[in-house]
Amino acid sequence: MINLKKITISSIISVLMIFCANADSLSDQDKERILALKNTALSSNLAYDIDESLTTEVGPRRVGTPGDKLAVKWAVAKMKQLGFDRVWTEEVIHHQWIRGTAEARIIAPYPQRMVAIALGGSVATPVDGITAEVVEFKNFAELSSAEPDSLNGKIAYVSYRMERKIDGSGYGPAVKTRAAGPSYAAAKGAIALIMRSVGTDDDRIGHTGGLQYIEGTAKIPGAALSNPDADLLSRQIARGNPVKVFLKLTAERKDDVPVTTANVIGEITGSESPDEYVVMGAHLDSWDVGTGAVDDGIGVSITLAATHYIANLPQRPKRTIRVILFAAEEVGLVGAKQYVKTHGHDMGNHVIGAEWDFGTGRIYEMKPGVGPSALNAIRELAELLAPLGVSLSPKNDAKGQSDMSALGKRGMPAVNFSPDGMTYFDYHHTENDTLDKVDAEALKQNTAVYTIFSYFAAQSGIDFRK
Amino acid sequence: MINLKKITISSIISVLMIFCANADSLSDQDKERILALKNTALSSNLAYDIDESLTTEVGPRRVGTPGDKLAVKWAVAKMKQLGFDRVWTEEVIHHQWIRGTAEARIIAPYPQRMVAIALGGSVATPVDGITAEVVEFKNFAELSSAEPDSLNGKIAYVSYRMERKIDGSGYGPAVKTRAAGPSYAAAKGAIALIMRSVGTDDDRIGHTGGLQYIEGTAKIPGAALSNPDADLLSRQIARGNPVKVFLKLTAERKDDVPVTTANVIGEITGSESPDEYVVMGAHLDSWDVGTGAVDDGIGVSITLAATHYIANLPQRPKRTIRVILFAAEEVGLVGAKQYVKTHGHDMGNHVIGAEWDFGTGRIYEMKPGVGPSALNAIRELAELLAPLGVSLSPKNDAKGQSDMSALGKRGMPAVNFSPDGMTYFDYHHTENDTLDKVDAEALKQNTAVYTIFSYFAAQSGIDFRK
Repeated sequence: MINLKKITISSIISVLMIFCANADSLSDQDKERILALKNTALSSNLAYDIDESLTTEVGPRRVGTPGDKLAVKWAVAKMKQLGFDRVWTEEVIHHQWIRGTAEARIIAPYPQRMVAIALGGSVATPVDGITAEVVEFKNFAELSSAEPDSLNGKIAYVSYRMERKIDGSGYGPAVKTRAAGPSYAAAKGAIALIMRSVGTDDDRIGHTGGLQYIEGTAKIPGAALSNPDADLLSRQIARGNPVKVFLKLTAERKDDVPVTTANVIGEITGSESPDEYVVMGAHLDSWDVGTGAVDDGIGVSITLAATHYIANLPQRPKRTIRVILFAAEEVGLVGAKQYVKTHGHDMGNHVIGAEWDFGTGRIYEMKPGVGPSALNAIRELAELLAPLGVSLSPKNDAKGQSDMSALGKRGMPAVNFSPDGMTYFDYHHTENDTLDKVDAEALKQNTAVYTIFSYFAAQSGIDFRK
Repeated sequence: MINLKKITISSIISVLMIFCANADSLSDQDKERILALKNTALSSNLAYDIDESLTTEVGPRRVGTPGDKLAVKWAVAKMKQLGFDRVWTEEVIHHQWIRGTAEARIIAPYPQRMVAIALGGSVATPVDGITAEVVEFKNFAELSSAEPDSLNGKIAYVSYRMERKIDGSGYGPAVKTRAAGPSYAAAKGAIALIMRSVGTDDDRIGHTGGLQYIEGTAKIPGAALSNPDADLLSRQIARGNPVKVFLKLTAERKDDVPVTTANVIGEITGSESPDEYVVMGAHLDSWDVGTGAVDDGIGVSITLAATHYIANLPQRPKRTIRVILFAAEEVGLVGAKQYVKTHGHDMGNHVIGAEWDFGTGRIYEMKPGVGPSALNAIRELAELLAPLGVSLSPKNDAKGQSDMSALGKRGMPAVNFSPDGMTYFDYHHTENDTLDKVDAEALKQNTAVYTIFSYFAAQSGIDFRK
């Protein structure tokens, strides 16, 4: 009932906000163009075809792998093919990490093999693996409050299961263990950390994702079990006898071996204000296990297709539309941080930005993060998006999603678009992130939204900071 | 429309058949007992707990593996614990096969790793693997009609996708390639066969299952790709350039190394006709990849729980209820064939039999295979099962499912119970066959049906052959 009330109130506010929109930032011709752009986006398979091309011809593209270098070439060629006016790359440097293999087995009381995957950035176990008793923690808080030395010589195991939510808000509580769990466990004396995958599926496939070792604590290996294997391990533990697990990771962390990659940037040049940039972002890298069709092939496809549709108009919109395909997002927004460093002098010309990095589902909400005077224009935009099922959030505190948060922190206004994320964490960071998971119909809606947004922002001349 | 008509007509026939049931094979007390048994089965977690025990304490149990031997011990102990009067094992001999590892990669034009699994019984590739051009066939018929020598030095690839059907009837057209594909491909000169998995899911997990080499043709390696990987390979092939694949299997086929296992048989002894057996069957072995929670942990659990409920009654039913947990079903009904050999002299005393080997879903239909005079009794049974949502098939040609078909062929009357099989082939013969896939509520209905069936058949004294 409380949720229902919230929805109702926020819907009413959205409707009121839309009706309060008086300013008229676009000419009638512009409005006609937007309708035509929308129809094109809703009837074309272009975005899907871009993702098909990326996943078929490139596939996995983690920073430091041949696939990543191939992806950069692919993106440059694809932007040119799609009619971008300028395409260039900007070098990004990270360090090497080799995944190697992951083996996990219950040794006692009931020997069984488990499906496990190394957390991104994990160190290896000793060559022969380790065998130790496991201690189960129901969640990160329980692990955090374990007594010092209570895990000496043991493997810490966090069995917390991520909750499925439309906005992905189950991720936060679950991902703490992946990020900080190994260091917290090490601080209590553990020799390894294993965890239930951060994922909402029931597949025998582990979810990877980056860990961050905390300075000053021992670096211990970290691995994620598939959900059914975590169930199995917890069932054996629940029988009350000591449970021993064998874990072997052959990962190699090479912090002193640099690897180069690149942000790939493409523009269609504004006809009146070429130095003002409406920015769309996505990340080009992926984890190395699936083909990154969803994470973030969807973002790459939406932003390229949207720009292509606008490039096909008889004339360029007033401002430049810039697409940034960020490098090395998965390992900590490395490309986005480099972009902000390189373009720091120029951030004031980034008039507004939107990222896509949240999977394959219809967009149901737009949340702005703009100056108060620009809210009228946002209401106009919302009016254009409403027929696509997109409502306007009553909040105005968006700071940019994923990579774009690095630009948002530097003062760039942003809009966040929220898609239905119910299935996103079924496939996130897994082998299962493949083209068949893409919702081709939702992708058309997504692309229509980004096309309208970018054309509106580039053509209307609104100052979104004010 | 045609299907709808069929359903309507068969429903009418079912209802008519039920109303035509005049004979009254059970006393009022028996009918009360059946009601009580039904209530017990519908409210108890016993069947689920049995499957939980099997999958947690034993796990995978392919013939020739330690898990299989452990499963036999587990089953003997579990039957005793559940109050069976007699429990024994009967030796079954098969030969050794080692799965080894499977590696598959597209080498050209766009190198990508694929997820593959060896077909059960496959030979290995040469130690260094093989690299060859693939030739795609849309289905088994296309492969069969390829010209002789047209596949010399090539890898045959069958991309046929299994259809999802409630009764599992999509399996037949798909499984032909798994069973006979390698020999058919070898006959045209191929050096290996790869195929799209026989499965309805979109997981990055291959489906195994047995192949049968045909005498007189070369034994070539056979492997199944996961559905997303088959999609990927077909997409690369569709671009029109030659596609090369690397395949490496380290399987070992050891036809001359015998392995022993056992059918595990348990009874509650009939109070009036102990030498007449109402038989319930399931198979104890599984493939080696998942924990066999569904295939056929469900069958094991239903038959043991049903017998336990009847064993708890104040007195034994008139006939013996015999549960046979068959060995080595997955490699070709080896345990069932041995059972028929051992019990050939005694087949006349097997008054009726039912197997469970079709997953986790509510039973919607019962199909008999009995003598014409016994149909009245079957209608009485159908009347007892109707409140559980089980309709009576208008056909009377059941011969026993899976293992039980070996007994059916020797003249034993049978009933086949059909559950909703829509998701069965998502997990069939994969890593993903784990406890979380079990529908615990459907399992209660399943167990209620088997309890009622076996009590009815054991207590009523009907001759199902006549």
